[in-house]
Amino acid sequence: MPEPFVALVPLRWSDMDAYGHVNNVQYLRLLEDARVVGLDSWAGDGPSMLEGGIVVSWHSIEYRAPLTYRPAPVRVDMWVTRTHGAGFDLGYRVLDPEDVGDTVYAVAETGLVLYDFAAARPRRLPADARGTLEAHAGDPVPFRWRDR
Amino acid sequence: MPEPFVALVPLRWSDMDAYGHVNNVQYLRLLEDARVVGLDSWAGDGPSMLEGGIVVSWHSIEYRAPLTYRPAPVRVDMWVTRTHGAGFDLGYRVLDPEDVGDTVYAVAETGLVLYDFAAARPRRLPADARGTLEAHAGDPVPFRWRDR
Amino acid sequence: MPEPFVALVPLRWSDMDAYGHVNNVQYLRLLEDARVVGLDSWAGDGPSMLEGGIVVSWHSIEYRAPLTYRPAPVRVDMWVTRTHGAGFDLGYRVLDPEDVGDTVYAVAETGLVLYDFAAARPRRLPADARGTLEAHAGDPVPFRWRDR
Amino acid sequence: MPEPFVALVPLRWSDMDAYGHVNNVQYLRLLEDARVVGLDSWAGDGPSMLEGGIVVSWHSIEYRAPLTYRPAPVRVDMWVTRTHGAGFDLGYRVLDPEDVGDTVYAVAETGLVLYDFAAARPRRLPADARGTLEAHAGDPVPFRWRDR
Repeated sequence: MPEPFVALVPLRWSDMDAYGHVNNVQYLRLLEDARVVGLDSWAGDGPSMLEGGIVVSWHSIEYRAPLTYRPAPVRVDMWVTRTHGAGFDLGYRVLDPEDVGDTVYAVAETGLVLYDFAAARPRRLPADARGTLEAHAGDPVPFRWRDR
Repeated sequence: MPEPFVALVPLRWSDMDAYGHVNNVQYLRLLEDARVVGLDSWAGDGPSMLEGGIVVSWHSIEYRAPLTYRPAPVRVDMWVTRTHGAGFDLGYRVLDPEDVGDTVYAVAETGLVLYDFAAARPRRLPADARGTLEAHAGDPVPFRWRDR
Repeated sequence: MPEPFVALVPLRWSDMDAYGHVNNVQYLRLLEDARVVGLDSWAGDGPSMLEGGIVVSWHSIEYRAPLTYRPAPVRVDMWVTRTHGAGFDLGYRVLDPEDVGDTVYAVAETGLVLYDFAAARPRRLPADARGTLEAHAGDPVPFRWRDR
Repeated sequence: MPEPFVALVPLRWSDMDAYGHVNNVQYLRLLEDARVVGLDSWAGDGPSMLEGGIVVSWHSIEYRAPLTYRPAPVRVDMWVTRTHGAGFDLGYRVLDPEDVGDTVYAVAETGLVLYDFAAARPRRLPADARGTLEAHAGDPVPFRWRDR
């Protein structure tokens, strides 16, 4: 398996809610910024899968530990869990950077669909993008709640 | 099956992102407010399951249609999909209010765990809360991506 | 003086920060939604001052009382404090709706400039828009900190 | 004059609104994180002015240039514009880091009041905190709109 993409995503004090922890919805904001950085990095200099549009078709996220604001960023590991004709799925792990600790705060997965906004319809994953994505393939996300 | 709880949740202009649609993460904010109103309503005058703490342990959400800011609120239907010894799961449907249309924008599910913050550990679902929740039980959430 | 425009703006639970009060920045979100509703209402059926672009050039806000999430909306009174060749200023008072109480939570003022995005430059306030705005003129905002 | 405190504050993609620019309200979020880092830094090892509570009593902000999301952070310069018996005021300039450019995006000022949450009343600025703050004193904020 290739190594996952690693994004360091800074927290904001306002990510905390009235319970004094990073709010569960804000974790998805952290994933959004990991995607913005990661997909841009994967696209590199080649024709980008981002050049056309991409839309989020689903998210699943499972929380593992409470997170409190601190100056240190969180680390988001990101990899590809599936590639198909109209899009791909991403897996993530939200954890401490190596020099901070080893707590895993959440695992998550996102389904993305390529979309042609001009034509208002899904579009096919280009062959070169499929190659790029397959180079970042990784394990299934170890969700626990699916075993309920 | 009992009718689901219906919350009318107003949008904010700022729910839209740079693509001009309500951002996928903001849908979870809408669900948060539906929960705040709905759980309070279900608790009624009896001993509340909210009196101790409740934490979100997971979310799944599937997007069905793009949503644009408008003065009319969205309607969030909410019901119980599972009750167990340490918590319960909620299903949701985000759609237009009856007088606005019949578009379904998203379906979602949240796992909630009862938590004793003072003792820093999960707590048991009280018997009376179980009864309350079972009175609001409904169908499984019709996720499509699970069938991939 | 004409009566100010009155917008009822719902709170969200997430408007509260780790101190358990509506965060000072979120008050400006409430003003944003009051503007969206109010300017649309003032424009009425006539040629709208909103048809071209409007940009915020400055804000001043002064906090008077802490606000905690509740199901009841806040009331935002909004009026015009100045009209000039390239835009106009709005005054606001954030307070309880009449049936909730009489606490004033904040007073604020926003400078708006009309902007032609296509030409990338400020544009002149149309004569009909000036008339509309003058019909909503009101008192200066009673800021206390300016007297420091 | 001493040099201002310099905070590098990362943007988030979601800071942009439907117009494709960093939303005017989000600038105040950037200032919030500059304050969190800056006040903590100023307090150093001594008795902290943050140990008791601090509340925002007012903000003024003036926008100078549109800002679009990019991976590079913005630089927030922060200094003290006034110290008084019950609090202090901060000035800010939001601009590009030196290696990115020299655009100034906004100037702003915030009034802060020391507050004893336990006793629910303002508290006096301790003498040592006054010394700390005076060491960071700087020029008045060059607001243009005040000259209107």
